[in-house]
Amino acid sequence: MERIEYLAYVKERMPNKRYIHTLGVEETAKKLAAHYGQNVAHAETAAILHDVAKYANVAWMEQIVRDYGLDARLIGWGSELLHGPVGAWIAEHELDVTHEDVLNAMRYHTTGRANMSHLEKIIYVADMLEPNRQFPGVDDLRQMMYDGLNEVFEACVKHALIHLISSGIAVFPQSIECYNDMMSSERN
Amino acid sequence: MERIEYLAYVKERMPNKRYIHTLGVEETAKKLAAHYGQNVAHAETAAILHDVAKYANVAWMEQIVRDYGLDARLIGWGSELLHGPVGAWIAEHELDVTHEDVLNAMRYHTTGRANMSHLEKIIYVADMLEPNRQFPGVDDLRQMMYDGLNEVFEACVKHALIHLISSGIAVFPQSIECYNDMMSSERN
Repeated sequence: MERIEYLAYVKERMPNKRYIHTLGVEETAKKLAAHYGQNVAHAETAAILHDVAKYANVAWMEQIVRDYGLDARLIGWGSELLHGPVGAWIAEHELDVTHEDVLNAMRYHTTGRANMSHLEKIIYVADMLEPNRQFPGVDDLRQMMYDGLNEVFEACVKHALIHLISSGIAVFPQSIECYNDMMSSERN
Repeated sequence: MERIEYLAYVKERMPNKRYIHTLGVEETAKKLAAHYGQNVAHAETAAILHDVAKYANVAWMEQIVRDYGLDARLIGWGSELLHGPVGAWIAEHELDVTHEDVLNAMRYHTTGRANMSHLEKIIYVADMLEPNRQFPGVDDLRQMMYDGLNEVFEACVKHALIHLISSGIAVFPQSIECYNDMMSSERN
């Protein structure tokens, strides 16, 4: 499928505000991919599709997790954590996306995980820092975008975790695995 | 064994500054136990002994973990995380402490865990807020000490996690289990 078809597919599955966010992620992800020497076409596809399941029915997504052997820890965590892995499932099964790195970038764009690829980090960062995002500290993070992919990714993960804990929101174990993986890489 | 014997045992295994901290934890833990209707004698024992392994040899502590089937995840995390569980092992095997709640309060005083008892929370809080502790925010936390054990415990856990992440220090998985357990209890 072409870019224009992916865009049409996601546009009818989300409110306009989320679609505008999607276009922002696409723009930012392609800039990051070009800057960091990664595959821009892969960044484009993963960015356009990353929130395809954002408004899918939670019970249906949990059934997909069970029926297709996705990470069972996702059950009970709601659409915020289900939509990445189930979005990747939709991309693979409904939209014929085959490149594993694109699917993983969709799959882990909310939680992160240990040992992320460049593309996975690009989509995570683009999702958080695209121009329509507004939260305290976003400008400081944006200023780091082209200073090093690992540096901006690490800053984004730390910011996300501190935001969750300050807000009293539970933290998915894989997000701590992602954070600990970065910290132990720096020690070694 | 009596209080005075426990004190003598720990005093010769730590620098004077740590011994003064231990006395501060004892004082705070006994006040908290009395205030919250918990067993003051158990709080006293757990507080005096909580750092008994703080300066033990790391390789020896890791051997104890392996030989006695302690949580294998502890290997590689250094004395900061080993000394609680290994201290409980010393209390049980060398000092004849038999009360499981006292041993658990020692075991989990650094990491926390899901489903902590009142005594476990008291030792965790006393360790962090005893009068000799100095860190940004400690006074705000101290002011909460008698407003509710769950409230001050939750505030201490959040503060500890945010400090670790802000400092780029890895977070032991059990500490996130502890935090998530509190957050899910509040949701239910």
